[in-house]
Amino acid sequence: MTMSLQPHHDGSATYVPEQEPALGQTVPVFVRVPAGADVRQVHVRTTGDGEPRFAEATVDRREGGDVWWRADVEVRNPVSNYRFMLSGARGYRWLNAAGLVDHDVPDNGDFKLVSYAPPPAWARDALIYQIFPDRFARSAAADGRTGPDWAIPCDWDTPVIGRGPETPYQFYGGDLDGITERLDHLDRLGVNTLYLTPIFPARSNHRYDASSFDRVDPLLGGDAALVRLADAVRARGWRLLGDITSNHTGDAHEWFTTAAADVHAAERELYYFDEVTGCDNSSSADGHNSASAPLGGAPDRMKAGLTPRWDLEPSYESWNGVKSLPKLNWGSTELRRRFATAEDSLLRRWLRPPYGLAGWRVDVANMTGRRGADGYTHEVAKLLREVVADTRPDGLLLAEHGHDHTGDLDRDGWHGTMNYVGFTDPVWSWLRHGDDPVPNFLGTPGGVPRRAAGAVLATMNTYRSLISWRSYVHSWQLLGSHDSARIRTVVGDAARQEVAAGLLATMPGTPVIFAGDELGLTGTNGEGSRTPMPWHRPESWDQGTFAAYRGLLALRRGEPALRHGGLRWVHADADTLVFLREAPTGTVLVLARRAAAAPVRLAGLPAGDNVYGGAPALRPDADGVVTLPADGPTFQVWRLG
Amino acid sequence: MTMSLQPHHDGSATYVPEQEPALGQTVPVFVRVPAGADVRQVHVRTTGDGEPRFAEATVDRREGGDVWWRADVEVRNPVSNYRFMLSGARGYRWLNAAGLVDHDVPDNGDFKLVSYAPPPAWARDALIYQIFPDRFARSAAADGRTGPDWAIPCDWDTPVIGRGPETPYQFYGGDLDGITERLDHLDRLGVNTLYLTPIFPARSNHRYDASSFDRVDPLLGGDAALVRLADAVRARGWRLLGDITSNHTGDAHEWFTTAAADVHAAERELYYFDEVTGCDNSSSADGHNSASAPLGGAPDRMKAGLTPRWDLEPSYESWNGVKSLPKLNWGSTELRRRFATAEDSLLRRWLRPPYGLAGWRVDVANMTGRRGADGYTHEVAKLLREVVADTRPDGLLLAEHGHDHTGDLDRDGWHGTMNYVGFTDPVWSWLRHGDDPVPNFLGTPGGVPRRAAGAVLATMNTYRSLISWRSYVHSWQLLGSHDSARIRTVVGDAARQEVAAGLLATMPGTPVIFAGDELGLTGTNGEGSRTPMPWHRPESWDQGTFAAYRGLLALRRGEPALRHGGLRWVHADADTLVFLREAPTGTVLVLARRAAAAPVRLAGLPAGDNVYGGAPALRPDADGVVTLPADGPTFQVWRLG
Repeated sequence: MTMSLQPHHDGSATYVPEQEPALGQTVPVFVRVPAGADVRQVHVRTTGDGEPRFAEATVDRREGGDVWWRADVEVRNPVSNYRFMLSGARGYRWLNAAGLVDHDVPDNGDFKLVSYAPPPAWARDALIYQIFPDRFARSAAADGRTGPDWAIPCDWDTPVIGRGPETPYQFYGGDLDGITERLDHLDRLGVNTLYLTPIFPARSNHRYDASSFDRVDPLLGGDAALVRLADAVRARGWRLLGDITSNHTGDAHEWFTTAAADVHAAERELYYFDEVTGCDNSSSADGHNSASAPLGGAPDRMKAGLTPRWDLEPSYESWNGVKSLPKLNWGSTELRRRFATAEDSLLRRWLRPPYGLAGWRVDVANMTGRRGADGYTHEVAKLLREVVADTRPDGLLLAEHGHDHTGDLDRDGWHGTMNYVGFTDPVWSWLRHGDDPVPNFLGTPGGVPRRAAGAVLATMNTYRSLISWRSYVHSWQLLGSHDSARIRTVVGDAARQEVAAGLLATMPGTPVIFAGDELGLTGTNGEGSRTPMPWHRPESWDQGTFAAYRGLLALRRGEPALRHGGLRWVHADADTLVFLREAPTGTVLVLARRAAAAPVRLAGLPAGDNVYGGAPALRPDADGVVTLPADGPTFQVWRLG
Repeated sequence: MTMSLQPHHDGSATYVPEQEPALGQTVPVFVRVPAGADVRQVHVRTTGDGEPRFAEATVDRREGGDVWWRADVEVRNPVSNYRFMLSGARGYRWLNAAGLVDHDVPDNGDFKLVSYAPPPAWARDALIYQIFPDRFARSAAADGRTGPDWAIPCDWDTPVIGRGPETPYQFYGGDLDGITERLDHLDRLGVNTLYLTPIFPARSNHRYDASSFDRVDPLLGGDAALVRLADAVRARGWRLLGDITSNHTGDAHEWFTTAAADVHAAERELYYFDEVTGCDNSSSADGHNSASAPLGGAPDRMKAGLTPRWDLEPSYESWNGVKSLPKLNWGSTELRRRFATAEDSLLRRWLRPPYGLAGWRVDVANMTGRRGADGYTHEVAKLLREVVADTRPDGLLLAEHGHDHTGDLDRDGWHGTMNYVGFTDPVWSWLRHGDDPVPNFLGTPGGVPRRAAGAVLATMNTYRSLISWRSYVHSWQLLGSHDSARIRTVVGDAARQEVAAGLLATMPGTPVIFAGDELGLTGTNGEGSRTPMPWHRPESWDQGTFAAYRGLLALRRGEPALRHGGLRWVHADADTLVFLREAPTGTVLVLARRAAAAPVRLAGLPAGDNVYGGAPALRPDADGVVTLPADGPTFQVWRLG
């Protein structure tokens, strides 16, 4: 069977030339209708000020068999919806951000024009490398440091314990100068942005339980080491991103210890004290959700280590019932001041010289400001964005959101999110290996499901359709992180990892690589994946995987369509995904296969040369049909025309 | 082929015994799994405080082959989401408010527990009759009244002009005492609630351009006539609902004339003056959206009639560019005071004795508070609800929303909406007659599409899934209104109108009947449907249609499952819809057919007696299968068990 292209629109420049529309502006939008599609008339439907209106589109031009329809849409509201009605001989279909649909649908899948200031320009070309500082590299200075009281000192070769009382306390002693010394590795790989999980002092190896936001952990080399790393990163023309916990602090944090000791302290209002916490369920449900609980089974031990304070037995809200992580109360004006608005706030300080972080990844943004009847989340996001932009106009503000982020984007807050649900999870479901359960970072009982490409595509399309193109492409696309199993463990072998990495490098969204994935490292859950980098055992590196990552990132760096192009799905069968990335500068065709399958025949495409994967060039036959290779697993890319 | 029942949950009392959950409460929810379904384990997934959690459900009981699973859900936030994961031999499926789905989905279709105060209890049993006062009935007193300057006096038999300069000015002189005199007709029909479109003075027959909110239009008999009507309605144990314009007033309104005449007037801030209105598009798009434009082609004439004020040429925002309907600015504190919060506000006054309206239908609620960057809609809804509840605890606040209302419900504002998109439009698409275009109140180019039942069901399910069960069942279910064509014109004959009326009377949601539909009156658009009631020509009444409405409303009044039961879809083919209404008191099976089709065979149902439509009783055969009749159009109801 031969597949034909379908009518298409997305938010990329090919279809929406004005990428930074202003409130009140009217901008043209285009629909591409291939020859043979049942489309005689096109209308655009908008909902400005809450009222639906239809306007007729007109034919703008005809190009190579395609008819390009044009409509004008007013950016009447900060987020302005539109979708298309394609009328033909067999009635009409809607074209919205989920694709073509033949029944009447709500507005939630409409295309969206966003008039808020766009994210910084550099973010669309970012290739991010994520580092968990305790596990990346030790400088010589690390040997001279004395471990903290809570730590279980580990050699670089000590096996990581993925779940157990020791999990948060295994201390490997990686530090910031260690990172600085290893930037050549990142250069070889081809990234241009570093994202560090927290670097503030804490009482765990992950440091999400900050005891201060005012200084870099001396165990990492302190403030001076951050300056050295920042300088080295800047010297390469790269950027450095931090990680901030807006949902909670550690219970050793100076704000919390003061607040806990004195009910009249100014810090008291920063937290939720002296109320029924209603967290009994949270606590007991924790076992179902352990992948998102970086402390694993640790609360008891942490609690034991903090006996003096616990004698007071203050009752307070905490992250998922983990009492070492007291929850911040964003109803507090004082918190907003200290965290964000004050001239010397923590949010501002680290964005300024000499540190000059290029932005923040915001931990647990999904819970930040949410508690019972309190719903400050959007206010907080807006506030943090204002302060970041005020401090550093090119600053990035990226939200962690472990499940459905769609309601929190497209406002004047977060620039994007960690797109676990719209990318990571579907890719895992499609490429997961074997029949044994594969643990799931979403806490899904039974682990990662096994899905065919059709279901995977439905999930990707649905999530994408609920947010603007801008929020989608500025969200982080990742195959795993310090909070999940490693992709190699999920997919089982190098061939399938290459398919996963191929999607990472060729789909819209900012690719993020968790340090070590490029070497084929393994890990069965978030904590277990925080493996020290095997610098001293280069023979253990999977050089083929490194070469694939390096080649794929180079491809993305060199091909504007992969960084800025649209996304047009062409075909999905159980084992196959095929899509186009279209940009004014050219078009790229991508084939991803988890296994060998019937060859895919596509009509309406021009010839194309292979630029990744080694398959033959595409040459249309006498009927104008190109045939994609049938082997698999494979990942192939062609530049068309 | 024999259809089997699927696992099911909805928000009705069978599945959620606690119908008024409080914030912080933990409530049990149940899933019914029929024998033979591939379900070995059930989990509930919640997202309290923004974090997903899974908890295992347990088997509560087994009944007649069904397994009832129970899970506990904390009402952690004002609106608390949950959905079920059904695991079986072939992996897991999600059960959310849209039904069963085999790929991973966002949270927007989750079931929802809402902890805000519920709508008034009477609303769930309401059967509403909508009256457009100018066209319902004239009392003897009407003959003595002099028509206003703007009016084109019409005899009761003058044809209604559906679109033209005269449309808003045809004046038939119906009045409130005319309604009072005709309550016996409503009693025969079987309704228990009257909803009147506006009754305030205005310069049009529809009165959505109020010139005052302080008195009942003397042309309707004034305040005293409202008292007489209210007393008569109350005497029958019924309720009376009003209609208020929160989006705009008329340009003859005392607030607006004062504001337009004096830039320093206190009233100036009630409107959007002296700004670029940005409404050029709105105006030109009006032709695409005329069904929702009650003034039709009238603005020019209205403008001409108001020359003295127009000499000032004030520039101001108005409803869809119709300058006779200046838009209210809800950023104004003074507006909030006058409209709502003041002790003698218009919102309060008419809810109190001696008028005692039982609530308000809020006109153009979809646009209220929305303009460019202004987004006060939810604030306004919350404010109006607070004031209504404060004035009259059993008051109802129902929003007009002509398209996708789903983002505006389930907050602390509107109790429900006019469910045009989730009921009217799908029913029209399914039952519309012939091949000629049927005009569409949504302004859809080409009019009402022709849809098979599968597409209709997908649309209904999608809209329903985006709001809580409570908002769904408290929304108004209508086959048409003063803003749309009449159902008889859409479906073409009495047989299909009976099917439509059957769905109206048996689906969840508050049935609303537009006066005259029960007599088989016709009308091709909103204005054209505002036909005078043919009291004086009883021979023109479609007595069969009246009997059908009467019978169907009696059925609903007598059967708790039809008023309070769940909604469980059993089958859809192109011409057929079959569903169950399940309540603790019993279950009802409904068959709706637009045409004859293959007989539907259902497994797993008990025997049932026919209670509407005249089909034989249902008796399971030796295989436990019941067969529904194959003829159509038909509408049949059986009480099971």
